[in-house]
Amino acid sequence: MIAFQRRLLIASTAMLAAPAFVRTTSAQTAPAPQAQAPGFYRFKVGSFTVTTVHDGFVSRPLEGFVRNAPLTEVQGVLRDAFLPTDRMVIPYTVTFLDTGRDLVVFDSGNGVTPAGATIGRMLTNMQAAGIDPAKVTRVVMSHFHGDHVNGLLNAEGAAAFPNAEVIVPEAEIAWWGDATNETRSPEGQRANFANSARRLAPYAARMRRVGPDSEVIPGVRSVAAYGHTPGHSCYHIADGAEQMMFVADTTNRPELLARRPEFHIIFDFDAAAAEATRRRIYDRVATDRIRITGYHFPFPANGYLAKEGSGYRFVAADWSSAL
Amino acid sequence: MIAFQRRLLIASTAMLAAPAFVRTTSAQTAPAPQAQAPGFYRFKVGSFTVTTVHDGFVSRPLEGFVRNAPLTEVQGVLRDAFLPTDRMVIPYTVTFLDTGRDLVVFDSGNGVTPAGATIGRMLTNMQAAGIDPAKVTRVVMSHFHGDHVNGLLNAEGAAAFPNAEVIVPEAEIAWWGDATNETRSPEGQRANFANSARRLAPYAARMRRVGPDSEVIPGVRSVAAYGHTPGHSCYHIADGAEQMMFVADTTNRPELLARRPEFHIIFDFDAAAAEATRRRIYDRVATDRIRITGYHFPFPANGYLAKEGSGYRFVAADWSSAL
Repeated sequence: MIAFQRRLLIASTAMLAAPAFVRTTSAQTAPAPQAQAPGFYRFKVGSFTVTTVHDGFVSRPLEGFVRNAPLTEVQGVLRDAFLPTDRMVIPYTVTFLDTGRDLVVFDSGNGVTPAGATIGRMLTNMQAAGIDPAKVTRVVMSHFHGDHVNGLLNAEGAAAFPNAEVIVPEAEIAWWGDATNETRSPEGQRANFANSARRLAPYAARMRRVGPDSEVIPGVRSVAAYGHTPGHSCYHIADGAEQMMFVADTTNRPELLARRPEFHIIFDFDAAAAEATRRRIYDRVATDRIRITGYHFPFPANGYLAKEGSGYRFVAADWSSAL
Repeated sequence: MIAFQRRLLIASTAMLAAPAFVRTTSAQTAPAPQAQAPGFYRFKVGSFTVTTVHDGFVSRPLEGFVRNAPLTEVQGVLRDAFLPTDRMVIPYTVTFLDTGRDLVVFDSGNGVTPAGATIGRMLTNMQAAGIDPAKVTRVVMSHFHGDHVNGLLNAEGAAAFPNAEVIVPEAEIAWWGDATNETRSPEGQRANFANSARRLAPYAARMRRVGPDSEVIPGVRSVAAYGHTPGHSCYHIADGAEQMMFVADTTNRPELLARRPEFHIIFDFDAAAAEATRRRIYDRVATDRIRITGYHFPFPANGYLAKEGSGYRFVAADWSSAL
C-alpha cells in the first residue's frame, strides 16, 4: 500500500514536472543551430549609411604586448574590462560608408587567410551585409600595416576591389614607398615595405594621395594621426549636422589602451608620437562627443569615448534594430 | 591660352581626383542594402549554448519614468551613457538556452504587434537564428508583465510554443492568479490579472510552478528576486565550472538603473523591495563576476556588472565570431 502510494506520488510528480508529451518532444528536439550571427552592423550619419563589417580576431601572447608596463598591471586593466588576462584578443572590424554617390571602405581587412583561421571573415560578412566588393568605389587607407592592406588582394592575387580608387595618406606612402627608409624603421616593421608595395601594385593606375586634413571625397576628410605609423590617418565623416570619425589604430582595443593612453604597444612605429596623437584625437572626440569607429574596437566597433581619470572609457553606441 | 591651360589643369585634377572609370562605376553603384543585421547572438556556458534574440525597442516619455529623482538628474545619467535624453529607449531581448536535452526560452517577448511597430521582431530574429518555436520544450517565466507574457500567444491566439511546458514562479502565479489581489495592486498593474490569465490559458494543462531557489531543469535554478512584481524571479544557469544568470527585470536598462540602483521606476510593483533585490542580486553577480543576460539590456544583452561608486557599471561581454 505504501509502495503503491509512493508510485502514485512519483507518477504525479513526474507529470507535474514534465508531462509525457513534453518529454517526448524534448527527446526529439534537434539542437538549435550553432552558428554565430553574421558580423555586420549599420547606422546612419546624416543621410550616409555606415556599415561595420567584422573580419574576425586573433589571440596573441599578452607578454610583451605593452612595452612600458609590467604584465600584472596590463592584466589588471584587462580584468577590469572582463577580458581574458592570459592572452591578448585583437578583433578586426572594417568600416564601410555609403554616401549615396560613393561606396567607401576604410582599410581592407586581413584578406585571404588559411582555412581554420579566426580572421579572414570580411568577405563572408560583407556578403551577409549585401556589400559587393565590385561596387566599392573608394578604398581609403589609414596606414600600411599588413592587417589593413592585405585585403587589397583577392585569392588570385588580383585587386579585391576591382573598380575602386585607392586613397592613401601622402605621409604613409612617402615612408613605405621609399626603400631607403627601411633601415630607419623598427625591425618589426620592415616587412611593411615589400608587403604594402605588393598589395597596392594592382591599384597603381588608380591611386590618389591625400595630404593631412584634406577632403578625400565630399563629406570625408583626412585627419593626420601620425605615430602608430609615419602617416597613420583618421577620417572625419560628416553629413548635415551629424559627424563621426574612423579612428583606425589610434589605439588598439580601447578597453586597454584608451583606458591607459600612456601604454605603448609593440605595433607602434613611434610610441611617443602615437601617444601624443592618441591624446589629441581622443580629447577631440571625447570633448565633442563624436561617434567613432575603430579597427580593433569590440564589434560592432562603434561608440563614444568619455574622459575618465587620465584616460578614456569606451562606451559602445546603443545597438538599434532601426537605422 | 590661359583658358586652355586652365581647362587642362581642371581636367588633370579631375582625373587625379577621380579617374573616369571610377566615376562611371560610382554613378552606376547601387547603394548597399539598408537592412540592419539580424538581432541574435550566441555564446557558450559550459556545453550549453545561449542565444539572445532581439524583439525590438520602444521609445517612451522620459518624464515620470523614474519616480524618485528629478528629470535633469535622470537625463544626466543617460547623457553619461551617450543615450537619448529626450525619451526613454527600452530594448527587449529574449534569452534562449539549449542544454542539448532541452530548448528553453526565458520569457516570451512582446508577441504579435501592429505593423510598423518597433517591437515584435522576435520571431523574425528566431528564424534568423535557426530557432523553431515548435522545438522549444520549456518556456520559463520571470514574471507576468505584458512584455514578458504576450508572446505566449501567436497571431491566431493559440500557443506560440505548441510543444512547450510553461514554468512559472509560484509566488507570481499566486498573486496574479488570485483576483482578490487586484484592488491591492498598483493601479497601473491591474491589467496584468486578465492579461496573464489569457496568455497562459492554452498552457494550463502543461504548466509547472517552481518555488524560490529551486531546480527548474538540470542546470537551471530559480532565484527569488521579488519586488519588480510579487514573484519576479531570475534564473541561474550552470554547466560544469561555468555559470550565468538571467536577471530579467531586476533593472530596466542598466546604464540608467544599475548605475543608480536607488532609482525607482514606474513599472516596479514594490519599488523598495525591488531596490533591495537589485542590490542583493547585483552584489552577487558583481562579486562573483557572473555573466548575465537581461531583458532590457542593450543588445546583445549579455555581459557583466562591476561595482562602481554606490552602483554598478554594465560591461558588455566581448562579441566573438567564435562560439
